[in-house]
Amino acid sequence: MTEKQKTFAFVVYPGLTALDLVGPLQVLSGLAEADPAFRVVVVGETLDPIDTDSPLRIAPSHTFDAVPDPYAILVPGGAALTLQALANRTLIGYLARAAESAELVTSVCTGSLLLGEAGLLNGREATTHWMFRDLLRAFGATPVAKRWVEDGPVITAAGVSAGIDLALHLVERLAGAETARAVQFGIEYDPQPPLGPLDWANAPHEAMAPLREHILRDGLAGHPELVAKLLART
Amino acid sequence: MTEKQKTFAFVVYPGLTALDLVGPLQVLSGLAEADPAFRVVVVGETLDPIDTDSPLRIAPSHTFDAVPDPYAILVPGGAALTLQALANRTLIGYLARAAESAELVTSVCTGSLLLGEAGLLNGREATTHWMFRDLLRAFGATPVAKRWVEDGPVITAAGVSAGIDLALHLVERLAGAETARAVQFGIEYDPQPPLGPLDWANAPHEAMAPLREHILRDGLAGHPELVAKLLART
Repeated sequence: MTEKQKTFAFVVYPGLTALDLVGPLQVLSGLAEADPAFRVVVVGETLDPIDTDSPLRIAPSHTFDAVPDPYAILVPGGAALTLQALANRTLIGYLARAAESAELVTSVCTGSLLLGEAGLLNGREATTHWMFRDLLRAFGATPVAKRWVEDGPVITAAGVSAGIDLALHLVERLAGAETARAVQFGIEYDPQPPLGPLDWANAPHEAMAPLREHILRDGLAGHPELVAKLLART
Repeated sequence: MTEKQKTFAFVVYPGLTALDLVGPLQVLSGLAEADPAFRVVVVGETLDPIDTDSPLRIAPSHTFDAVPDPYAILVPGGAALTLQALANRTLIGYLARAAESAELVTSVCTGSLLLGEAGLLNGREATTHWMFRDLLRAFGATPVAKRWVEDGPVITAAGVSAGIDLALHLVERLAGAETARAVQFGIEYDPQPPLGPLDWANAPHEAMAPLREHILRDGLAGHPELVAKLLART
């Protein structure tokens, strides 16, 4: 790297949702290829491979210690193991410290809850996966139902695949529409969901309620202080 | 696993494009969660972590030898290192053998070229990343400009992000529209590309030509037989 490069740090921890990470990682890697002013790294507590919520294991390129003051951070989300990570002081401590100097603080899906635990959402508008949007209030944030929500330096995206849209927005913001279009052609992002867009009027809130309860119970087990914090206001 | 489980094998090799793999892996992992009749594994030559085309390293869950007869294979693509993989006899040999018993043979992006090298596209319609679509003719395939192309048991997807659409189609085909919709809500796949869909009338063919040449030169270096095969008919 050169002294002038702006480093995007993708922050990983055990059990994250792989696509939350890899969607925006692919897009921002395209930016770094197109414009050497940017650099992309994957940071973790150690360099050892960690589990994701899929059969894929992943390994960071750098440790937290090696990237103390990135230009931007991006935090992927997940299910129960992301809630467990709310009690991971090494992770939350890194987010809080890195955010001090970072010009952009971003998340995908329930990664925004980790930003909240690091004290970064207080008084801000934010979003997360639709099933867990109400939990943002626990961190002093105002939940917003949008694909991504920009509040000053903090940009949070909705669930999982929304990270791709967020990342293309970041490329446009940082390098302009022409570069964003080139990256979009590079990943051939011309979505054609076989069943069409989501029909929010028929979102399966009731059908998903047991899954939500299961994730909350599993993720917060052994942490009554988190249960009290997250569920008091929902 | 149980004897009756149908195994989706995601086939990995050094240098692949991470999103080609992780988009459909996330979707099919959702199917496996919803329906225990399905099982998802990531297979590689060894269990050691390998590089992707991003700063992320990934580790397979199983070796090729451990999954000799999957129900389905999915092969991700990439750039120069995917072309280099055309000369990887271990990889191509695994694809050819696994396809013999597989009921579904699928690919994302230039992963279809690897299927072609394994002799699986002869006489079939197929697709790949838009920049490399003409290369499919080298394998006796008829290139088609669609998001995904289904020809009997062989289903090939267009570039990178098309793997998400392909995978949702597979879920619908294998488990029905209700399950596919639930998985789509799970990954909140309600795409909103900031600059809208791709404008194919203004695809950057000329601007991308030097990149294409560079990838072909790098990927096929040292393999004149592959140069002759791939470039003779383009």
